[in-house]
Amino acid sequence: MTHMLADYQLDALIALLGKDAVRTDSHSRHTYGRDWMPVIEPDPVAIVFPRNAEQVQALLQRANEWHCPLVPSGGRTGLAGGAAALHGEIVVSFEKMNRIIEVDATERLILCEPGVITAQLQQTAREHGLYYPVEFAADGSSQIGGNIATNAGGVRVLRYGMTRAQVAGLNVITGHGATIAEMRCLRKDNAGYALRELFVGSEGTLGMIVLAGLRLQSTPPALATALLLLDDVTALPAVMQAMQAFELHACELMDARAWQWGNAEQSAPLDVPPAALYLLMEAPAESMSAEALARALQHQPVSDVLLAQSATQAERFWAVRESITAALKPQQPFKCDIGFRLACMPAVLARMGQQWPDAVVFGHLGDGNLHLNIVNSDDHAITQAKVWQLVKDYNGTITAEHGVGLLRRDSLQSMEAKARLQAMQNLKRVFDPNGILNPGKLC
Amino acid sequence: MTHMLADYQLDALIALLGKDAVRTDSHSRHTYGRDWMPVIEPDPVAIVFPRNAEQVQALLQRANEWHCPLVPSGGRTGLAGGAAALHGEIVVSFEKMNRIIEVDATERLILCEPGVITAQLQQTAREHGLYYPVEFAADGSSQIGGNIATNAGGVRVLRYGMTRAQVAGLNVITGHGATIAEMRCLRKDNAGYALRELFVGSEGTLGMIVLAGLRLQSTPPALATALLLLDDVTALPAVMQAMQAFELHACELMDARAWQWGNAEQSAPLDVPPAALYLLMEAPAESMSAEALARALQHQPVSDVLLAQSATQAERFWAVRESITAALKPQQPFKCDIGFRLACMPAVLARMGQQWPDAVVFGHLGDGNLHLNIVNSDDHAITQAKVWQLVKDYNGTITAEHGVGLLRRDSLQSMEAKARLQAMQNLKRVFDPNGILNPGKLC
Repeated sequence: MTHMLADYQLDALIALLGKDAVRTDSHSRHTYGRDWMPVIEPDPVAIVFPRNAEQVQALLQRANEWHCPLVPSGGRTGLAGGAAALHGEIVVSFEKMNRIIEVDATERLILCEPGVITAQLQQTAREHGLYYPVEFAADGSSQIGGNIATNAGGVRVLRYGMTRAQVAGLNVITGHGATIAEMRCLRKDNAGYALRELFVGSEGTLGMIVLAGLRLQSTPPALATALLLLDDVTALPAVMQAMQAFELHACELMDARAWQWGNAEQSAPLDVPPAALYLLMEAPAESMSAEALARALQHQPVSDVLLAQSATQAERFWAVRESITAALKPQQPFKCDIGFRLACMPAVLARMGQQWPDAVVFGHLGDGNLHLNIVNSDDHAITQAKVWQLVKDYNGTITAEHGVGLLRRDSLQSMEAKARLQAMQNLKRVFDPNGILNPGKLC
Repeated sequence: MTHMLADYQLDALIALLGKDAVRTDSHSRHTYGRDWMPVIEPDPVAIVFPRNAEQVQALLQRANEWHCPLVPSGGRTGLAGGAAALHGEIVVSFEKMNRIIEVDATERLILCEPGVITAQLQQTAREHGLYYPVEFAADGSSQIGGNIATNAGGVRVLRYGMTRAQVAGLNVITGHGATIAEMRCLRKDNAGYALRELFVGSEGTLGMIVLAGLRLQSTPPALATALLLLDDVTALPAVMQAMQAFELHACELMDARAWQWGNAEQSAPLDVPPAALYLLMEAPAESMSAEALARALQHQPVSDVLLAQSATQAERFWAVRESITAALKPQQPFKCDIGFRLACMPAVLARMGQQWPDAVVFGHLGDGNLHLNIVNSDDHAITQAKVWQLVKDYNGTITAEHGVGLLRRDSLQSMEAKARLQAMQNLKRVFDPNGILNPGKLC
C-alpha cells in the first residue's frame, strides 16, 4: 500500500518550509525512506528539509495535530533500520541544517547543526589543530545528529569513548514539540537530571536534535601498530591485561577466517603465519616499541608479534581488517553486533566455533564488541535464537554499537527485563506522548 | 515538631532488617539526619541499615504502603542538603552494604555495594596496580553510592571526568520498588535508552543504588606541578589554550585573596610574588619541563612561572589551595559553586570583583567551576539574586559539582526553563510516582 499525504497537509508543509523543502517524488521517497539495513521497502509520504529549529518545532506541532509519524533522518548509514520509513511517515532530513556555528578552541568545543557530516566535523577540528575522535567506516556520509541519536562507536572507542563521551550539549525538540535546551556545554554541571544523556542513543524516538556541542581532543600522538598472533584463545584476557602496559587507541580482533577473508581481498595479500586469532593494536609509538612489546608479552603465549615498520605496513594491516565486511558481502552472512566482558571472550569464542564452524568473527575486542558473521545460516530465526542464547548465557548485549532500530526491536522486548522495558516505555511517553517520533523503533 | 514512627511500622522494620539495623535514638537521628550543609535541623523518624538489595526493595515496598518518605544516605558529606531528613523521613543508611564484590583487572572494573568508602575504592584499585580517579576533599568518608547519586567531581575531572564517566553499571531500586538492572558493564552497549545515566546525579530522588560497577584507570604518570602567576585577567583564555600543549591533570585557580587566605594558613607561608590570579597546574612530568613550559607560554602575559622542584614543593603549592576553605570558615562566607565556559571567565571575574570587592574566588578553572566565596554578605537573599543574575548573564550553571539538593531547589525552579523542569518532574513521576524518595530535593 502506498501512503499519501492529504492536499491540505502538503500545502501546510510547503507554506511552512517552502516548495523546495518538501519532496514527494518516488525517487526521493525511496532514497530517503531507508538506511543501510538490507531488505527494506520504504514507503514515506514525503521528505521534508527544515532549515532551522523553529521549522522543526512547527513540523512537530503539525505532526501532533495530524497524528502523522515523523522519521528523523541523518546520513542514513545505520544498519538497524532506525531511519527507515515504511508506513507513510514524513521523513525529516537534516541535510539542510548543516552549519558549523562556532569553534571554541579554548573550550575545545564545536557547536553545530545536526546535518553536519562527521568527516566535516573531523576536518574542522583538524583545521583548528584539534581532533574529533569518533571514526568509523561511514563517517564520510553519516551526520552528527545521527551519530548522537545512535551513540555511534567505531575504532577509537577504547581510547576516547562512544559519541556520548563527546557530547557537551544538545538542543532537542521533543515529540510533543517542547524545546529542551541543554546547551551550557560545561564540563561540570550538576543542575538537575541528565536529560542530555537520555537523548544520546535514543534513536530519534524521544526528540529531534537541532543543535549539538561536541568536545574536541588534542591531536593524537604518533601511533605504532602491532599485529599479535595468538593460538591459545584462552589466553586472550591475560594478553589483554598485559597490553594494558600501553595506552591502547585501538584493539581489533580477527579470527582465522576473518583474517583470510580480509587478506584475500588485498591486491598483494600479506604473508603472515596462520593463527587462531589476530589482534590489531595501536598505541603511542613512543611507548610501544619492539622492546616494550617483547617485555609486556614475555610471559604470554603469543605465537608472533609483528610491529609495523612503516605507515604503509600499518595501513596494510588495517586494510585487511577493513576489507572483511566487503569480502563477506556476497555470502550474505547473518550479522551480529554483540558485546561481552573480556573475561568471557574465550568461552564465547569457543562456543561460536562449536555452533557455527564457518562463522567469521571480528570486531572491536578492546570494547568487548564482536561482529559475528554467520555464513550459511539456513534459518535465520533459529540462528538468531542461538545467538541470543549465547548473549544471555554470558550476560552480553544484543547490540554493542549498531543500535536497536527496527531490526532488534522484538529482540530487545524478548531479551531485556520487564522493569527496564517498562521504564523505557514510560520515558517514551514523557517525551513523545502521541507516539509521533520514529514509531516502531527501539521500544 | 518531632515526627514519630508508629509502633506497627517500627515492628515491621525490625522484622525486616533485625533489631540492630533500626535506630530511633536521638543521637542517631541527629547524626544521620543531615549532611555537611550548614544550619539544618534534622528530624527523621528512624535510621535503617539494610544489608542487601532485597531488604532495600522490601523497604521501598513498605514505604510506598505507608506513604512514608525515605532519604538515601551515604557518607553525608554533601554540601547541598541532599541527604538531609527534616520532616519525619526514614533515613536509609548504606553503611552496612559496603562489600567490594569483584575486581576484574582485565576489564579494569570494580563491582561494589554503595556503602564502600571512596578512599577504600581508591585503595583497592591501587592494590591491583590501577587507579580510581575521583579525588576530592571528602573522599575519606564519602561513599561510592553517594558519589554516583551526586555525580561527584573534584580535582581530577579535567583529565578523567566526573563520577559519571567512571560508572560502568548500576543496579537500582526505583521509588516504586522496581529493580532496574544496568549491570552488563560493557564499554559499548546500545541496547535501549541510557537509563543508567539518568540515575547518576539524580540525588536519590529516582532510585536507590544497590550495586555499582566502576571503571579503573592506569596509574597516572609522574606529574609535574606548576604555579602560574597572572596579572592580566583578560589573558586567561589564551593562557589556558597555550597550556593545552600539555595533558593537564589538574588546573586550579586562586585569586589574590584566595592565595592570601590559603597561604596565611601555612606554618611556613610561601614567598610568592603578588598576582591577580594564581593557576596551579599539573601535567605529566615527562612533557611539562621548564623548557616546555617556557616555550608554551612565551607569548603569554604570565608574570611568573614556578615549576615545583620537588614533591615537597608541589605539596606546599597544593596545601595553599586546599587550605582556603578552612581559612575562610570563621568568616562564614556566602558560598557558591558556579560554572562558566572558559571564554567568559575574564568578564565573570571582573564582574565578581566589581560586585563583591572582598570576594574570594578559587576553584577548578579547567572545568569552568568557580567556588565564589562572598565574605561580608549582609543579606544573603540579595547576594544570591546577584549571583544568579551573573550566572544567567554568562549562561553558566548554578551548581557545577555540589548539586541541587535542598539548598538550590528553589533556585533551580527559578533559573531553569519551564520545559526542562517539566521534563524533570515527569521523569520523577516515572520512577517514583508516590514521591517516596528524597522529597523536597532537586525537583
